[in-house]
Amino acid sequence: MDQSDLKAPTWQFSERARKLTSSAIREILKVTERPEVISFAGGLPSPATFPAERMREAADRILRDTPAAALQYSATEGYAPLREWIAQRYSVNGAQIRPTQVLITTGSQQALDLLGKVLVNPDSPVLVETPTYLGALQSFSMYEPKYVQVATDEQGLIPSALTPELTADARLLYSQPNFQNPTGRRLPLERRMALAEFAKTAPFPVIEDDPYGALDYAGEPLPTMLSMAPDHIVYLGSFSKVLAPGLRVGFIIAPEELIFKLVQAKQATDLHTPSFTQRIVHEVIKDGFLDTHVPTIRELYRDQCQAMLASLERYMPEGVSWNRPEGGMFIWVTLPAQIDTMKLLEEAVAQNVAFVPGAPFFADKAQNNTLRLSFVTVPPAKIDEGVSRIAALIRAKV
Amino acid sequence: MDQSDLKAPTWQFSERARKLTSSAIREILKVTERPEVISFAGGLPSPATFPAERMREAADRILRDTPAAALQYSATEGYAPLREWIAQRYSVNGAQIRPTQVLITTGSQQALDLLGKVLVNPDSPVLVETPTYLGALQSFSMYEPKYVQVATDEQGLIPSALTPELTADARLLYSQPNFQNPTGRRLPLERRMALAEFAKTAPFPVIEDDPYGALDYAGEPLPTMLSMAPDHIVYLGSFSKVLAPGLRVGFIIAPEELIFKLVQAKQATDLHTPSFTQRIVHEVIKDGFLDTHVPTIRELYRDQCQAMLASLERYMPEGVSWNRPEGGMFIWVTLPAQIDTMKLLEEAVAQNVAFVPGAPFFADKAQNNTLRLSFVTVPPAKIDEGVSRIAALIRAKV
Repeated sequence: MDQSDLKAPTWQFSERARKLTSSAIREILKVTERPEVISFAGGLPSPATFPAERMREAADRILRDTPAAALQYSATEGYAPLREWIAQRYSVNGAQIRPTQVLITTGSQQALDLLGKVLVNPDSPVLVETPTYLGALQSFSMYEPKYVQVATDEQGLIPSALTPELTADARLLYSQPNFQNPTGRRLPLERRMALAEFAKTAPFPVIEDDPYGALDYAGEPLPTMLSMAPDHIVYLGSFSKVLAPGLRVGFIIAPEELIFKLVQAKQATDLHTPSFTQRIVHEVIKDGFLDTHVPTIRELYRDQCQAMLASLERYMPEGVSWNRPEGGMFIWVTLPAQIDTMKLLEEAVAQNVAFVPGAPFFADKAQNNTLRLSFVTVPPAKIDEGVSRIAALIRAKV
Repeated sequence: MDQSDLKAPTWQFSERARKLTSSAIREILKVTERPEVISFAGGLPSPATFPAERMREAADRILRDTPAAALQYSATEGYAPLREWIAQRYSVNGAQIRPTQVLITTGSQQALDLLGKVLVNPDSPVLVETPTYLGALQSFSMYEPKYVQVATDEQGLIPSALTPELTADARLLYSQPNFQNPTGRRLPLERRMALAEFAKTAPFPVIEDDPYGALDYAGEPLPTMLSMAPDHIVYLGSFSKVLAPGLRVGFIIAPEELIFKLVQAKQATDLHTPSFTQRIVHEVIKDGFLDTHVPTIRELYRDQCQAMLASLERYMPEGVSWNRPEGGMFIWVTLPAQIDTMKLLEEAVAQNVAFVPGAPFFADKAQNNTLRLSFVTVPPAKIDEGVSRIAALIRAKV
């Protein structure tokens, strides 16, 4: 649909809506729906990992045994047994998480929207990594913040960059310490400890967004910042990457004072996350299912990551660099400075291969020679073919 | 949870969050969870009307036949067959609704949030009925509008009250023409026609929020304003009252120019409504199920409405008046001017009976001697007992 074709009423949009532009990723995803395209663009988990049969059994039991409750309006805070499960799951390393610290959200994306809603005024400084998750930028932008980029290196956010000058008047710091989208980087233990210490005295919350934490290939997760500062970190979790994203069930763990406001905001936003999907998640996971299921996802993704790394090694010319992720779904590739990956994408799509250009992941001063590759939904043979096509396009430019 | 008990970080909330106060309805609903309370307070549909077995079969078929699609991320606009079903369903009386005019939302409440997001700036005038739906006030208030109340009478909104002076600079007019929450009033045909004509030239959208339209007891619906001005009315629909609210599936029908912005805002808000619940709704309704199912809901609610009207007639003293709804879930009661229903509620709860005071439904200048009764979840014998208790409390005051 081309917006300019529309003969429409002359209604005025809000300031925030006027600033909305169509997302590059969104337009790209349309192209990659063609079956002949080898797409490394999606942030979609592999449907091979969805425990469909188990969910089918769970859905059936729920609608057989508790249909009235599963289909009725329910509490804004979320399904109590699921909140309790989450509180218990995250009460590790000496941290005690209370169920009253947990709010169930309609996917992790809603957590970002609600945080923007209750924390951000127009022109409020909001601290983000360089680069950062595009979806977070989209959510927070509806509340018209002033983004402040925090310096990063190959290991992620640099805690010493959080000087009083940089963080003055900030309303929140947004971070993804585990296998960040888009860079795949994991924040080392000592930086987590430094950031958790920072959170204990900061006059604003440090957000630990952790959709990929369970997907570390070695099965040796680093402790969360939440476990180090359970009364000061705002932790965002999701079942999208360990069960299935189409259920849209995520959660926020935060101090009750913030949960209290978030619940009020959520009530005004969608009343509550669907009762049925929350119950399906709880029914599927309550007996320890994730402990056997998640390792199978890790294994699949690790193998596909290794396949992609091998292909990159095989085909990419000198001057192209990338990281070797220890988990998650993404590899971050940096090309010679003169190559603009937005333009490269157009050529790639003509060759039936797709990726996401890096630019939209920067709040400011985009590095236009970067791109994000996802390896999780493409079988190894196609990974090799796709990488070779992209490499050929790059070789023609260097 | 008492907010004052919390030792919490000293984080600053946004201006909009500071204005949030706990909803009276919310606090009331907590009290009415006690099984001994006869509650006329809820806006909940009767679980007796949920087609649980049919949903169970639908859920099973979907997870058997299309698990990958039902559990994966999906388009922000919504499940295409459901959008097509809705477009066809509302293409009546000569109006042609295109599927591209339909956006699936996470319940109707999300539609209100998204409309506030893309239309309302701080201090934008927003026109509402007197009284109006409390949930709409909650959603729009997050965008800090200036409410302007439009005069109503026993038949609902008075179109001639929409003078240029009253509507100057307005960003939207919010209305519920069918069996309004809280008053149960239905807007007559000639007023619908006048409001549809108004919408055709107004520089802002007229919102027709219609969760209860299918619930007219005689099965003789009045035409929607959407059908009279399909390119100028923004119509909000919901499956909460005709199937089940716990699935959280609603929709917006609007000109594409607005849908385009709403889709962008929804992407930033929760990416999409759960794929699985959208498919369940479509699977359940696609073969005409609502045409046989909705009449059974109408019949139940009509009988319970008549029971409550008979009880009101039996017990209420002189000076108390109420409407006789032609559909929907609510009766609106006006008491002698000196009785404050917020205080009356405290006494009523002590007598194990509950209702919703009218005051929170007014954007301004509340009529404190009003209250809303819902009859749909209480069996007739208990309706009689509950009304007699409230009437006794009122009789003691007149």
